Amino acid sequence: MKPDFGYLSVSGKDNPLVKELVRLHKDRNNCVYIEGTRLCRDALESGAEVVKVVFTEDNKELVSSWYGLFECLKSSEFVLVTDIIFRKVSSTVNPQGVAMVVKEPEIYSTASTLPQDGSGKDIYLVTEAVQDPGNLGTMIRTADAFAFSAVILLPGTCDPFSDKVLRASMGSVWHIPIIKWEDKDTLFECFKANKVTTYAMHLKGSELKDNEIELPAAYFIGNEGNGLTDDTSGKCDRLLKIPMSGKAESLNAAAAASVMGYVFAKNK
Amino acid sequence: MKPDFGYLSVSGKDNPLVKELVRLHKDRNNCVYIEGTRLCRDALESGAEVVKVVFTEDNKELVSSWYGLFECLKSSEFVLVTDIIFRKVSSTVNPQGVAMVVKEPEIYSTASTLPQDGSGKDIYLVTEAVQDPGNLGTMIRTADAFAFSAVILLPGTCDPFSDKVLRASMGSVWHIPIIKWEDKDTLFECFKANKVTTYAMHLKGSELKDNEIELPAAYFIGNEGNGLTDDTSGKCDRLLKIPMSGKAESLNAAAAASVMGYVFAKNK
Repeated sequence: MKPDFGYLSVSGKDNPLVKELVRLHKDRNNCVYIEGTRLCRDALESGAEVVKVVFTEDNKELVSSWYGLFECLKSSEFVLVTDIIFRKVSSTVNPQGVAMVVKEPEIYSTASTLPQDGSGKDIYLVTEAVQDPGNLGTMIRTADAFAFSAVILLPGTCDPFSDKVLRASMGSVWHIPIIKWEDKDTLFECFKANKVTTYAMHLKGSELKDNEIELPAAYFIGNEGNGLTDDTSGKCDRLLKIPMSGKAESLNAAAAASVMGYVFAKNK
Repeated sequence: MKPDFGYLSVSGKDNPLVKELVRLHKDRNNCVYIEGTRLCRDALESGAEVVKVVFTEDNKELVSSWYGLFECLKSSEFVLVTDIIFRKVSSTVNPQGVAMVVKEPEIYSTASTLPQDGSGKDIYLVTEAVQDPGNLGTMIRTADAFAFSAVILLPGTCDPFSDKVLRASMGSVWHIPIIKWEDKDTLFECFKANKVTTYAMHLKGSELKDNEIELPAAYFIGNEGNGLTDDTSGKCDRLLKIPMSGKAESLNAAAAASVMGYVFAKNK
């Protein structure tokens, strides 16, 4: 089946387009490089702004079917590459032969207002210096599953659109606003203005009780090794910890975020 | 400071001992290769059976202090290696220059009886074909944090003593019995004989309610992509799902296991 869309065919490794794609892994330039059928489809279904579709001969038919299905591909550039070139621009060990360059959603990159869902019971997950991309992706997925209003990233948190975060989020990065909030003080001011109670996950906090959560709320999760900074937990209205009677001192950050997510969502 | 213990000094890359250590990464032979100060210390504090301690010149003093502190090192073999050899046998990108070969605890490798904590309210986490070592390690850490009686691994679950699982478990693999249970039918028989209610995490299950959990209990978590097999969920007494109102269809397996862990532990 011949695709009904125009495409460039690139076979030379030194083609500027190949170099540009390789460079994207180091400097994203507000773009997100996503690879594999599943991640691409997640983005397409969410109506992401697709700049380029890169594919091998084996995936021509698949890309053609996507072109027919998804409006967001109408102004994209299509590039057919050899298997060798695809491996060169790929970030995975077993490349599937289809990838897309997608614009990072503009509204997510910075913000000074809070997204609200109209319920008056919004829940926000705030991360501070979460370093493991698998953890961040899992947290974004959790926030999406429990219908939070946004995930807010304080400085020091890893790149939310890296390949590992995208994979761990299983498409949730396209469903929920992800906001990089540069100035912590304005965030707390914004929460205060919106009557959002702030909770810090903290080993010295009081034990989490399911019926003592006030919404709207934001809960703060800190770095995997060091937790929240004293400054941040000091600014929060309440410190909470998950009751644990075993030998492990703490849960994994994303696991803790999920327990909190469940409890907060129950109060909605 | 000169260590007060005898040690071999190895500087040749072709030394049989070096080859043996490299081979361990492929064929563990009931041993666990652990690396880095933190993981080694976790094992030492749990009284693990240490076969060998491998260290570089920079870590001689540290190892000497461990020798003074930990009884479990009294019959270990100590091997001083060059930085180059340590890098060769290392499984990490930035080797810390200290590693140990530890015997996999024999009681954990197979079992036909259930560890019990005497409360009559034991909780067991059972995994079926959990493939991601980070997820398995996180689940083991969760089970330890909530004082479960064991983590039981059905066939298809990844190696619980691989480097990635050890790291994600943060030492919990040494705190809680980890049982590879080969025959699923005998496991269900054993649960039945001990009046353990079995719960399957399942998207078609009824919604988790905090006060409807009966202990002792075991909950089953399935493969990241496919969930539990029909056969396994069919054998469980109840199917449960975590209530979610957002767009993500499911939580990460380890995140779900943590939410369940929190709810089950609350009923203890």
